[in-house]
Amino acid sequence: MIAGPLATIDLGVIAENLLTLQIMCGNTEVAATIKADGYGLGAIRLAKTLYGAGCRTFYVAHLEEALAVRALHADTTIYVLHGIPKGHETEAFEKNITPIITDLGTLTRMRETAKNIGKAIPVNLHVDTGMNRIGFGATEWNMLVHTPSLIDGVDVKMVMSHFACSDEPLHPMNEQQREKFIGATKHFVSAKKTLANSHGVFLGSQMHFDQVRPGRALSGTNGLKGLKNALSVHAPIIQLRSIDSNGTVGYGATQRVQKGMRLAALAYGYADGLHRVFSNSDQTTGHHFYLHGIAVPVIGRVSMDLVMVDVSKVPENLVHVGGMVEIVGAHQSIDDWAAQIGTIGYELMTHLGNRIERSYIEVKS
Amino acid sequence: MIAGPLATIDLGVIAENLLTLQIMCGNTEVAATIKADGYGLGAIRLAKTLYGAGCRTFYVAHLEEALAVRALHADTTIYVLHGIPKGHETEAFEKNITPIITDLGTLTRMRETAKNIGKAIPVNLHVDTGMNRIGFGATEWNMLVHTPSLIDGVDVKMVMSHFACSDEPLHPMNEQQREKFIGATKHFVSAKKTLANSHGVFLGSQMHFDQVRPGRALSGTNGLKGLKNALSVHAPIIQLRSIDSNGTVGYGATQRVQKGMRLAALAYGYADGLHRVFSNSDQTTGHHFYLHGIAVPVIGRVSMDLVMVDVSKVPENLVHVGGMVEIVGAHQSIDDWAAQIGTIGYELMTHLGNRIERSYIEVKS
Repeated sequence: MIAGPLATIDLGVIAENLLTLQIMCGNTEVAATIKADGYGLGAIRLAKTLYGAGCRTFYVAHLEEALAVRALHADTTIYVLHGIPKGHETEAFEKNITPIITDLGTLTRMRETAKNIGKAIPVNLHVDTGMNRIGFGATEWNMLVHTPSLIDGVDVKMVMSHFACSDEPLHPMNEQQREKFIGATKHFVSAKKTLANSHGVFLGSQMHFDQVRPGRALSGTNGLKGLKNALSVHAPIIQLRSIDSNGTVGYGATQRVQKGMRLAALAYGYADGLHRVFSNSDQTTGHHFYLHGIAVPVIGRVSMDLVMVDVSKVPENLVHVGGMVEIVGAHQSIDDWAAQIGTIGYELMTHLGNRIERSYIEVKS
Repeated sequence: MIAGPLATIDLGVIAENLLTLQIMCGNTEVAATIKADGYGLGAIRLAKTLYGAGCRTFYVAHLEEALAVRALHADTTIYVLHGIPKGHETEAFEKNITPIITDLGTLTRMRETAKNIGKAIPVNLHVDTGMNRIGFGATEWNMLVHTPSLIDGVDVKMVMSHFACSDEPLHPMNEQQREKFIGATKHFVSAKKTLANSHGVFLGSQMHFDQVRPGRALSGTNGLKGLKNALSVHAPIIQLRSIDSNGTVGYGATQRVQKGMRLAALAYGYADGLHRVFSNSDQTTGHHFYLHGIAVPVIGRVSMDLVMVDVSKVPENLVHVGGMVEIVGAHQSIDDWAAQIGTIGYELMTHLGNRIERSYIEVKS
């Protein structure tokens, strides 16, 4: 039922992007980060597609996300960035879900679990290299590498870290993080190493180590070279109106309209992920979508289920109820759209609401 | 599994708020607006609770939302604010879902459907009274009321309009809209009338007509007098870190931290509905949550699955991994939280992400 907004996701493009990344990375494994419901595109559909294209390793943030991905295939490695919540350690082990350990406290919990079940538990150790977010800090890491008993019963399969500024290729922190990472991982000779997220892949092969773990790059939505965009978003016109007399539009009566203007109401509101700061296009903000390639400015406040756009510049015979207005597509990428409100495409992708129908273009076999 | 953020929704309070509103409104029917998944709280749970407390009329925005509510009970009236998408008119009629008609085009479609099935179709007519969003404009309404054949085969059960400024009780537009509404509806003597949304209910009984249709007021989250708050939101600490040396935190390395600061990583990121503009608390922005009643400022950029807060002011023995930080609760309402970034609680409620576990406190029987 196309009654509301529609996101079209081309799974063939996503499979192709994985192969492009794999060619770029040579012998380095390309894992896929599909947390936050695959950045809003649908983690399950992405995981199936990427598996079909050869991917066998997935990163998610929460255990629940990991369990959903495990239900698809038995022969994948699944890493959980936030680790395993207390009380679920054995369940995670039995489901072959690998925790990412970020501090000594959670490491202790894993060691105790290993002791209880009498088997070694595979883990991925996340060492912080300057982001100061999650991951072992310098003091704890130093303690860890000099106290072998701390990893009794855990099998360190992988050591990872995370870039803070990889979207700025010339930022000095990238190289500093690489050097810190090499220093930190030399203590785990037999473990594999991974540092690069989507943008990290494009910093060069010195950042690839044994594995890269792109997320959004797989959808080609962030303009990285050689990758194709897999996403478009459209919203239907549910009513057209010619303004009868000068007045205002929407909540708070914040924007004036003139007699004769033609407005279209779109079924796309803040509940669907259109932030309220998109309200009231003017010469400064310029908030707009596209209809038949013509920019249509946002008029009045964005409301929960609706937004009004000015379609006066679009020929009348091209505007009708049921017509789809382009939010993201040929005329603006999700990053262009996000830039209108000073944010990044990542945020708006993960805010694509539940009422937006996801339509998938299947991989051609 | 409490591994991630948690929203607690007190259904008993919601049932109580319905009764409070019913007492306020006397003989006027209190319908419930539960679009956008019940403003993020769960439309199905809300509908069941409100039905149990006596509510028999529901408003939603999309047909799909209506079908989900219809599946619960047969004896309710369900109005669809966006109307019925083309091709689904008969299905909606058979499921006893009542379209809200906003223009002559959709009215024509309903008339044709009525002719095809040989039965009168109940409708709700939405007349615009100055919001200039959806609803019949003056020209079309004038044509409608003077051309009886336009409503051949449709049974006008209800006429509605919508306030633009009801959250500002002294705004002159409220009274102007009431007068326009009375003028417009006098042509439909046998139809019932409804004008008031949540804030409209509180403008006084002259706004109540035959039915009021509060939405967010039912959850008591907008501070309306006499209603109780039914919502709290918390996020777990997944890692604590003492800063080893002066540096920066998070993506883009945008905020500096000093040696000795104690930070907590919360499993709550923009994918969970924490807008990125909450990043980097400083003396101007003051972005914060609460832990044990102590304000904990946001440090660094909000990332997709995580945010860092400064817990240096909270006694060390009260801060531990797994502890829950208050996003919305005793110390800040969802409107207080929203005000930190210049928006309204409605937006942040509808952005509460899918990974946030909804925990329901049942109505005491």
